[in-house]
Amino acid sequence: MLKIANKTFHSRLLLGTGKYPSLDVQRKAVQAAEAEILTFAVRRMNIFEPTQPNFLEQLDLTQYTLLPNTAGAKTAEEAVRIAKLAKASGLCDMVKVEVIGCDKTLLPDPVETLKASEKLLEEGFIVLTYTSDDVVLAKRLEELGVHAVMPGASPIGSAQGVVNPLNLSLIIEQSDVPVIVDAGIGSPRDAAFAMELGADGILLNTAVSSAKDPVKMAEAMKLAIEAGRLGFEAGIVPKKRYATASSPVEGVPAP
Amino acid sequence: MLKIANKTFHSRLLLGTGKYPSLDVQRKAVQAAEAEILTFAVRRMNIFEPTQPNFLEQLDLTQYTLLPNTAGAKTAEEAVRIAKLAKASGLCDMVKVEVIGCDKTLLPDPVETLKASEKLLEEGFIVLTYTSDDVVLAKRLEELGVHAVMPGASPIGSAQGVVNPLNLSLIIEQSDVPVIVDAGIGSPRDAAFAMELGADGILLNTAVSSAKDPVKMAEAMKLAIEAGRLGFEAGIVPKKRYATASSPVEGVPAP
Amino acid sequence: MLKIANKTFHSRLLLGTGKYPSLDVQRKAVQAAEAEILTFAVRRMNIFEPTQPNFLEQLDLTQYTLLPNTAGAKTAEEAVRIAKLAKASGLCDMVKVEVIGCDKTLLPDPVETLKASEKLLEEGFIVLTYTSDDVVLAKRLEELGVHAVMPGASPIGSAQGVVNPLNLSLIIEQSDVPVIVDAGIGSPRDAAFAMELGADGILLNTAVSSAKDPVKMAEAMKLAIEAGRLGFEAGIVPKKRYATASSPVEGVPAP
Amino acid sequence: MLKIANKTFHSRLLLGTGKYPSLDVQRKAVQAAEAEILTFAVRRMNIFEPTQPNFLEQLDLTQYTLLPNTAGAKTAEEAVRIAKLAKASGLCDMVKVEVIGCDKTLLPDPVETLKASEKLLEEGFIVLTYTSDDVVLAKRLEELGVHAVMPGASPIGSAQGVVNPLNLSLIIEQSDVPVIVDAGIGSPRDAAFAMELGADGILLNTAVSSAKDPVKMAEAMKLAIEAGRLGFEAGIVPKKRYATASSPVEGVPAP
Repeated sequence: MLKIANKTFHSRLLLGTGKYPSLDVQRKAVQAAEAEILTFAVRRMNIFEPTQPNFLEQLDLTQYTLLPNTAGAKTAEEAVRIAKLAKASGLCDMVKVEVIGCDKTLLPDPVETLKASEKLLEEGFIVLTYTSDDVVLAKRLEELGVHAVMPGASPIGSAQGVVNPLNLSLIIEQSDVPVIVDAGIGSPRDAAFAMELGADGILLNTAVSSAKDPVKMAEAMKLAIEAGRLGFEAGIVPKKRYATASSPVEGVPAP
Repeated sequence: MLKIANKTFHSRLLLGTGKYPSLDVQRKAVQAAEAEILTFAVRRMNIFEPTQPNFLEQLDLTQYTLLPNTAGAKTAEEAVRIAKLAKASGLCDMVKVEVIGCDKTLLPDPVETLKASEKLLEEGFIVLTYTSDDVVLAKRLEELGVHAVMPGASPIGSAQGVVNPLNLSLIIEQSDVPVIVDAGIGSPRDAAFAMELGADGILLNTAVSSAKDPVKMAEAMKLAIEAGRLGFEAGIVPKKRYATASSPVEGVPAP
Repeated sequence: MLKIANKTFHSRLLLGTGKYPSLDVQRKAVQAAEAEILTFAVRRMNIFEPTQPNFLEQLDLTQYTLLPNTAGAKTAEEAVRIAKLAKASGLCDMVKVEVIGCDKTLLPDPVETLKASEKLLEEGFIVLTYTSDDVVLAKRLEELGVHAVMPGASPIGSAQGVVNPLNLSLIIEQSDVPVIVDAGIGSPRDAAFAMELGADGILLNTAVSSAKDPVKMAEAMKLAIEAGRLGFEAGIVPKKRYATASSPVEGVPAP
Repeated sequence: MLKIANKTFHSRLLLGTGKYPSLDVQRKAVQAAEAEILTFAVRRMNIFEPTQPNFLEQLDLTQYTLLPNTAGAKTAEEAVRIAKLAKASGLCDMVKVEVIGCDKTLLPDPVETLKASEKLLEEGFIVLTYTSDDVVLAKRLEELGVHAVMPGASPIGSAQGVVNPLNLSLIIEQSDVPVIVDAGIGSPRDAAFAMELGADGILLNTAVSSAKDPVKMAEAMKLAIEAGRLGFEAGIVPKKRYATASSPVEGVPAP
């Protein structure tokens, strides 16, 4: 069970809702993923303005926990303003803090990310913070009181997978709050890897929405995350340089 | 569906039966894996001599396809003799050819492996051949007529995973018979990776039997193999150097 | 030529002076490395107090540019105090800012690192800053005006090499000041790799001082850094999936 | 010193002579590399027919040991015929056996490679054999009596570097004859890596001849190979998960 603040989830897959080929595919992918938490950019979505087209209109939003993100914010101030707008709608009390520091890599700005997280915690939000895999920065966020840290595996939408498993595992090892790997997961293997390192969950979007068959990929990711988690819990055998017979035949008489 | 010779299987996980902490755990792991093909060393097992203790006694063997292997053979001649012994029992007509060329690495002997495969094909066996990931050797085996090639991901029992994804993918790309990755898979991520490369199946033993919780790991591997296969079929997004927004907000008015 | 602030160096290897088996080996390693910049912890060295034993006593310090570091500092304030002490000696006007945020990983504290760098720039120091490989943080340091950014390849003394070549190359690509890879380089190959990515220089200590033969390793590292730099300048051929004959014989008559 | 059969060489870089932009660049690259052994395809070169243009005409061949290869051979018989033609010229008594089993990957045919090596040894050649990184195959070649085994790092001309360091190091560990890594080296780091694993030498062609500046790359490779060898001899420090201070300041009074 994934616990974030006072909420509990069966699924460890947080799914983004952007960039699907159609709203129908989006809905089917969300179902195949068995996701319980859906994320979306507040600036992109008009769900708070009933007169506008709604990018989530095919989803029964009462079944999901909504996790709006502050995508588009480049300063703490902007992120706070966006988060407040989302909360004012009454649809959600969690927010994913995302303050971008570089347009090319969409990597986060560490100082503004810290500031935005601090301010939103003061305002009573449940704060999940997208961060680089800087180990000390992740610790500082946790010390502020964020409810989950969300280190990127690699740049958003890059599908490069877990580029730095060392940092990710150090963040997981030191953390007393959930670590949700966010950004860069490209394939089921990447997802399984992050989970084997001990991550509490994974947030995905492009890997599913831009796959040739998003619905099938959503199912693949669901299974991969379960597989990686079970593997982590089951105790993976250590690597060895040399071989070990799986069916030892020493001392067994030749037939 | 995995097709080997004239047989069809739902499961793409072939499970070894050696080295479990107990026969009870072995049985539960086999069930959790939902494996349909079980492998074992002919030399190790006494299933062909009803008066002896039987390492598979807790399994209902009528539910599984048995894939005896020639572990312990160092020459083609030995492998052929072991294979014939298994067939004589009437329990199986498939055999996994395994001719070891090095005690330290348990890596196969290419020349003896070719010879043993050729001889057993002449004798009418359904032949699945354990081989190194030598690309041309795999092609030569296929040209002989083997029913599946089984390249190692890394040495048996080493848990090093897919050390050479290039060779594995070249073997898969060139092959007209099933490619079953055999040996070296250590974790769910390794299994998912091999499947994403397009493998038709995976044979596992140590990764499950030597895990802290073999039954849970069996389930993890089952899911990982399904995840990797679905990912392969669903079309994994290509890696990019730079980021791509999953929720593009250019042109979206700031709230 | 490596240019830092108004200084120019032939060597791209910055060598640490700690942890050698003896002062004699230290001196020989410094010579074999042909280093021009030597680094040391201000807190560790007594070179500023002539009455004390001096860890650099076998080196002719007039031949080298000294780069004291603020190792041991956990806050900007401490780092600034240590840096001022070094400058007051009159032996150096460059300082390597190092503010540690985690005792286990010795990874830097991003916020205190920024603060210390800013303050020391205001005080007129030539500032080289040890940082994580956080891409945006490196950009923020450059915007402050630091004279070089020094991202870690992996944790200090870990010998894990370049764990995240993506971030390192993004930092190099964006930077208008020298990028000197600091920490984690373990072997000549690691050093060559960092240089091939376009780094301007490398700071090493443990890889040399803790090698079985530090003097020989110092020479190995000197050559590896030159090799990597030349390779970067010479234009490395791109990787291909398939082979290309180095001696094409199509159309060449068989002998 | 690299010893092959009864010959001794200072340089551990064997350089191919194909595909340079011009014969002038070829000559300068050979000089910059300080190579002592030059390799070329017998089928490609007309050095044995004085009336024809000669691809090595700018080189003073009396200064080098010539290592003709049997590129273009697909069977043992062809390889033997090509090798004999080279020897008949009186210019060389060494030969690199190369029997290709796949046009797409230019990977070697294991069975024909063994046959050709055996036959040429019987004929009194000094035999260096290009092989895959199949560990047992390399052992079988050594048992035949070849004077050096030449496992590929990755496919010829692919520049993919050392794809399988495990197999390479197992081959090196088991071998009593020189192991010369042949094919696939793309950059100085790749060359240093192979040498750090304990290789005795490296054969390069495309990485140099197809670089933007082949002469500079030749020098880079020369240095990288020296660096890797020195590193191997100097004893590389083991990797650690956590950090170790290079300038420990515990117990050192703060300034």
